[in-house]
Amino acid sequence: MGMNENVSKPLDRLSAALALDMEAVNVLIRDRMASRHAPRIPEVTAHLVEAGGKRLRPMLVLAAARLCGYQGDAHILLAAAVEFIHTATLLHDDVVDESQQRRGRPTANLLWDNKSSVLVGDYLFARSFQLMADTGSMRVMRILANASATIAEGEVLQLTAAQDISTSEDTYIQIVRGKTAALFSAATESGAEVAGAEAAVQQALFDYGDALGIAFQIVDDLLDYGGSAQVIGKNVGDDFRERKLTLPVIKAIAAADANERAFWERTIGKGKQDEGDLETALEILQRRGAPAAARADAIAWANRAKAALQACPDQPLRVILSDLADYVVSRLS
Amino acid sequence: MGMNENVSKPLDRLSAALALDMEAVNVLIRDRMASRHAPRIPEVTAHLVEAGGKRLRPMLVLAAARLCGYQGDAHILLAAAVEFIHTATLLHDDVVDESQQRRGRPTANLLWDNKSSVLVGDYLFARSFQLMADTGSMRVMRILANASATIAEGEVLQLTAAQDISTSEDTYIQIVRGKTAALFSAATESGAEVAGAEAAVQQALFDYGDALGIAFQIVDDLLDYGGSAQVIGKNVGDDFRERKLTLPVIKAIAAADANERAFWERTIGKGKQDEGDLETALEILQRRGAPAAARADAIAWANRAKAALQACPDQPLRVILSDLADYVVSRLS
Repeated sequence: MGMNENVSKPLDRLSAALALDMEAVNVLIRDRMASRHAPRIPEVTAHLVEAGGKRLRPMLVLAAARLCGYQGDAHILLAAAVEFIHTATLLHDDVVDESQQRRGRPTANLLWDNKSSVLVGDYLFARSFQLMADTGSMRVMRILANASATIAEGEVLQLTAAQDISTSEDTYIQIVRGKTAALFSAATESGAEVAGAEAAVQQALFDYGDALGIAFQIVDDLLDYGGSAQVIGKNVGDDFRERKLTLPVIKAIAAADANERAFWERTIGKGKQDEGDLETALEILQRRGAPAAARADAIAWANRAKAALQACPDQPLRVILSDLADYVVSRLS
Repeated sequence: MGMNENVSKPLDRLSAALALDMEAVNVLIRDRMASRHAPRIPEVTAHLVEAGGKRLRPMLVLAAARLCGYQGDAHILLAAAVEFIHTATLLHDDVVDESQQRRGRPTANLLWDNKSSVLVGDYLFARSFQLMADTGSMRVMRILANASATIAEGEVLQLTAAQDISTSEDTYIQIVRGKTAALFSAATESGAEVAGAEAAVQQALFDYGDALGIAFQIVDDLLDYGGSAQVIGKNVGDDFRERKLTLPVIKAIAAADANERAFWERTIGKGKQDEGDLETALEILQRRGAPAAARADAIAWANRAKAALQACPDQPLRVILSDLADYVVSRLS
C-alpha cells in the first residue's frame, strides 16, 4: 500500500478516480450494444467488450473532461462512443490480420466468422456516431469523424507498407499515429471540448493523447518481439510472421550488414520464413541494439506526453495522467 | 422523344433535372475519396465509384431537397455522404458474400484483397461522417447514424437467417428494410430535413424512400433468379448458391409439397447443391407462381411509394419520383 505501489499502478488509480463515471459508461455500453433484431451482434460484441480490456480510451475521455472541471454527463456518451470505435477497429483488425487470439482469448473471426466481425464492427461504428449525436456537440462529432478517417488511413498505409523493408521511421510513426494515437488524442481532445476547455488546454490534451498513443504502440510492437503471450494477449512473433515493419525491425534494417539485409529481405520482404527464423530475428535485433533504441524512443514520447500536461489544470488527475505515461513504458521492464 | 420514352426512363429525367447538382456531387466525391498518405484508398474507391453506378441514392437526396424548395448547398455534402456510405457497404458486402463480380466488373476484394475492402470501406464510412459534420445539422447526423446502424443490423440478420428455410416474409422485409431501404429513406428524409421541410413532408419522403427501397430490393432478388448478368451485373443464381432466403424462395417454400420441401432443405438448408439444382429451383419457383407473387408485392410497395408523395409539394420533380417507383418494378418486364 506504499507510495511505490501507487506509482506503479496509475491505471488502477485512474480507475478508482473515475469509478462512478466508468460504471455509467459500462451500463451505457451494455445498453447500446444490444440489437432488437440481431442477437448475433451483442454476442460478438460481448465476447470482446467483456474480455477484460483495460478501457483505457474511455478513461482518457473521462479524465480529460474531469481534469477540465466538467460537471455534466455528455462525457459518458463520448467515452462509450470511443470504446465502440475501438471495439469496431479491433474486430476489423482481426479480420485483416487473420488473428486467432486477442486479449488471451480466441478472436471473434475464429469463434464466429469474418462476416460477423466485419458487420458487427460496422454496427458498433454506426452506434458510436449515434452516441456522439446524443452529446449534441458538432465539434465532438468532427473530432471523432476525423480520427476515424485517420485510423482507417493508418491501417491501409500499414497494409501497403507491410513487406516493404525500405519503410522509414517516419512512415512508421505516420502509421502508428493513425492506427493507435489518433483515437487516444481524439479521446483526450474531445473530453476537453465537451468540458468547454479553452483552445490551449484542448491542444495540450490532444498532444498528450498523441504522444501517449505513440509511446503505447512502440511498446506494443517491442513486446511482440519479447513479451509473453500472457502479458500481451497474443503470441510473440505475430508481427514477424505477418511481415509488419515495426520500429525495432526498421532500426535493425537501417544498421544491417549484407547478411542481415538478405535475412530481412527473405523473411519480411519475400515472406519465406523457416523454422528458427524468429529466433534469428530476435538475435539480430539484440545485436543491433534495436530494442534498446526503440525503448529510448518510447521514453522520449512518454516525456513529450508529460510535458504537454503542463498547460493543463493542476489537479490530482493530472498527476495520474503523467504517471500513466511512465507506466506505459514500464511495461517493458 | 415521345411521352413513352420519357415515362420509361425516369432515371434519365432525374439525372437531367439534377445535372448541375450531380456534377457538384461528383467533384466532391472525387475530392473526398483522396488520401494524402495511402494511395490504395482512392484506387479501390475509384474502381467502384467510377464503374458507372446509377448514383440513385445521392439523386434521392438532391431530389428530396429540391422538391422541398431548397436553395442552399448542404444537400451536395449530404448526397456525397450517402454515396460514401453506400460504397462502403458494397465493399464490405462483397467481402461478406465472397462476391467476384459487381456492376459487371471484378470486385475489389478479388482485384486487391479482403483487407483493402474492409479498411477502405471503413475509411469511406468515416469520410461520410466528416461530410455530414460539414452540413452543420445535428438532425441530419442522427438520421444517417441511425440508418447506418439499421443497415449493419439488417446485414447481420441476413447472415443469421441465411440457410434457415423457416425464415418468414416478415423477417425478409425486416432484412430488406435494413440492408436496402434504410439508406433510401435516410436519403429522402435527410434531403427534406436539410431543406427545412415541415414534419409531415419529411415523414412522407421517408415513407417514399422506404417503400421504394423495398420494391427495389424485391426486384433485385427476383432478377437474381431470372435476369441476365448484363442487366444485374452479377450472375443468375448467386443468391441460391449463397443460400439466401429471398422472397421468391420464401413464397415457394410456403407452398411446397413434401418433395419440394426436401429439395429446399437439401440445397438451401444443408447447402448440398449439385449440377442442375439451380434449374430445378427455377422450375419449382415457376410451378408455385412465386415470381409472379413476389412481383405483385413489388408493385404494391411501388404504389405505396407513389401514394406517400401525395403529401409533398406538387412539382415536376414529384412526377419524376413517382414514375421512378414504376420504373423500379419495370426492370422485371
